[in-house]
Amino acid sequence: MKGFFSLLTTSQVQQILCSFPVLNAQQISLLEAPGRVAACDIVCPEDLPPFSRSTMDGYAVRAKDVFGASETEPALLNVVGEVRMGQQAPSTILEQGEAIKIWTGGMLPKGADAVVMLEYTKELDSSLVEVYRAVTPNENVILKGEDWLKGEVCIKKGTRLRPQELGLLAGLGITRLEVVKRPDVCILSTGDEIVAEDQNPPPGKIRDINSTTLTALVTQSGAVARRLGIVDDSFEALYAKCQEALDLGADIVLVSGGSSVGARDFTLKVFEHICSSPPLIHGVAIRPGKPTIVSRYRDKALFGLPGHVASCMVVYLLFVHYLVNIMHGLDPETGLAFRRVKCGEIFPSVAGREDYVRVRVKEDQEGGFPVAYPVYGKSGLISSLVIADGLLKIPRDSEGYHEGEEAEVMLLP
Amino acid sequence: MKGFFSLLTTSQVQQILCSFPVLNAQQISLLEAPGRVAACDIVCPEDLPPFSRSTMDGYAVRAKDVFGASETEPALLNVVGEVRMGQQAPSTILEQGEAIKIWTGGMLPKGADAVVMLEYTKELDSSLVEVYRAVTPNENVILKGEDWLKGEVCIKKGTRLRPQELGLLAGLGITRLEVVKRPDVCILSTGDEIVAEDQNPPPGKIRDINSTTLTALVTQSGAVARRLGIVDDSFEALYAKCQEALDLGADIVLVSGGSSVGARDFTLKVFEHICSSPPLIHGVAIRPGKPTIVSRYRDKALFGLPGHVASCMVVYLLFVHYLVNIMHGLDPETGLAFRRVKCGEIFPSVAGREDYVRVRVKEDQEGGFPVAYPVYGKSGLISSLVIADGLLKIPRDSEGYHEGEEAEVMLLP
Repeated sequence: MKGFFSLLTTSQVQQILCSFPVLNAQQISLLEAPGRVAACDIVCPEDLPPFSRSTMDGYAVRAKDVFGASETEPALLNVVGEVRMGQQAPSTILEQGEAIKIWTGGMLPKGADAVVMLEYTKELDSSLVEVYRAVTPNENVILKGEDWLKGEVCIKKGTRLRPQELGLLAGLGITRLEVVKRPDVCILSTGDEIVAEDQNPPPGKIRDINSTTLTALVTQSGAVARRLGIVDDSFEALYAKCQEALDLGADIVLVSGGSSVGARDFTLKVFEHICSSPPLIHGVAIRPGKPTIVSRYRDKALFGLPGHVASCMVVYLLFVHYLVNIMHGLDPETGLAFRRVKCGEIFPSVAGREDYVRVRVKEDQEGGFPVAYPVYGKSGLISSLVIADGLLKIPRDSEGYHEGEEAEVMLLP
Repeated sequence: MKGFFSLLTTSQVQQILCSFPVLNAQQISLLEAPGRVAACDIVCPEDLPPFSRSTMDGYAVRAKDVFGASETEPALLNVVGEVRMGQQAPSTILEQGEAIKIWTGGMLPKGADAVVMLEYTKELDSSLVEVYRAVTPNENVILKGEDWLKGEVCIKKGTRLRPQELGLLAGLGITRLEVVKRPDVCILSTGDEIVAEDQNPPPGKIRDINSTTLTALVTQSGAVARRLGIVDDSFEALYAKCQEALDLGADIVLVSGGSSVGARDFTLKVFEHICSSPPLIHGVAIRPGKPTIVSRYRDKALFGLPGHVASCMVVYLLFVHYLVNIMHGLDPETGLAFRRVKCGEIFPSVAGREDYVRVRVKEDQEGGFPVAYPVYGKSGLISSLVIADGLLKIPRDSEGYHEGEEAEVMLLP
């Protein structure tokens, strides 16, 4: 009986993947930066904000001048000017008993340390205002450098740039920055039985599902997907295409199909020939996804993925997405979402392998954990993936879950 | 004292937004389809798979011929041929006592109803095989049409196309399809105090943070973002830019800044002038985000968003993202992630308004709910958003949470 020599566990595989280095840095413009990863610490080139600002429409005051002010005992202040929006505050210092009209975002005048909201004031005439409420120092004010001071690190190396980090960079005037290069992922489908999706397959052949699915997954992972099409089941054809992928600068090559133990499995041989070494990984103790191969050529990874689309997707999410994150300098679980669920049915398994069962997740009417129900279907069926919301993990040391037991689901992207 | 006439609740606002119609359909290619939304039910043009297939390398058999087979009492079958990958199965029908060699993905021959895995067989010679294990009918086989039958709906109208739906479309040869147009969102920042992010602001001015933040948020929502730049605080300038946005085909116009009750607030007047009607929404009982305006011009929405970046982002996530989903034909909460948390500190609030408190979320070491800690900071600070993982919601009828109480956090995208 043929088999896999040494099945690794998920965590062993992930540990091996952690040995791949983070890709090099490249400089890009702020417009290209959404979702990218900072390649180094970003230091504030100036105080943010660059001056103290009002957060309200009202009057800039010295807090001690309105101490104890109330509806019944208002404070009376002399209005000595107005800070127009976007203009520099007067160069004179606000003196005792004085106020300056100010608008939201306006520059706080020297001497003032707080702003009284317009709602709590009454203009008696153009130079006199009644204040009905006390303010504490710094109330309704953002201080110069309150976000960050010049020289402070505001974005750490390895941070994925979310809308708010991009806004921060805009606020600092940082319009070019160093980010980690996005991993380039080349996608190949093997098999004499598959044709491209725009072809009409003759009897015995079917259209390629995996290339399209993997392309979308790779893009979602934040990597750059490049489809290299369908390769015939031959050593020469696959070797040539893998070489082409490497020549194109692929950081990761995905070959789906041809990774089970069978007569036509050239993937392993091709990988061994390219790398001049046995694979890092050949067979993983998971279901589906057992016949996974990972080889390493310099700092590039070659994956042999199962041909069945559901297996292929599980292996992608567990390992390829993980490696994309590693190469991108991110926490390897970035982009994955997990939920605690209650099992809505019995989930049988066998000890010694990890199971990933496609499930539907329904919110519990009573507000407890959501409930997971298995989606039945062979791993070659794509309908099970279309129906499913996630993958319920049954650990290696478990023989499954009873109805009502708690479990963890990885949500499908 | 000036104020907002009638503050609406979050759910009232969201109900009003539900009155906007779904955008029109457009035809695109499968390559452009990731993340798009099906504009109509998609019907299978053929059975999927188009023929019964083996899911294993092995022998195609009649299950009843190997009934009771075991290591000690193997079944003996005549090998009458081989189904080569991608080739049509023989036209003859498999007879009693016969087997045909078959590979994963191969076309099941007529008469066969199951496949015995290679591992459980032994080839005695080229025409005789011993089988060591019984199989049930349909074992290791995917039946013709087992995914979907011709004429069945495989993707429902309103489905967002994930990698697996795209794979399905590829499998069916559907390379062009009808999707809902992506909402076009034009982004404007108002204020005499702001300059573009590539400018060096003079004293009293700061760089525009909101345009960059909103552009990234809009893109994440699956809409098309178009930046129209910075507008001076004047009725004429803002009116002209809003008209330009509508002329460009905007479905949603976002104006940030200028929506608080103040002397320079032209947003409301401009919206009223364009729409010839009062706004649908003027003021929401939330903090931050109270001074929000929504007007409707035909089927287009005009938003006046708070100028403070944290407030702006809260309003975006609660209402603009919601409307993008409505216009896109999606469930309005699509793309948002919520988590149940335990409060790590006291979260004070006042009844009558909903609070969205920026929080950090830390996993509980003991495996319970994650724990949320408030990020202190005024809504004009962007650092609080950079530090935060999510927004903890304190409902309208609550005066806050005690340490240890359960609450809900909307994760920041």
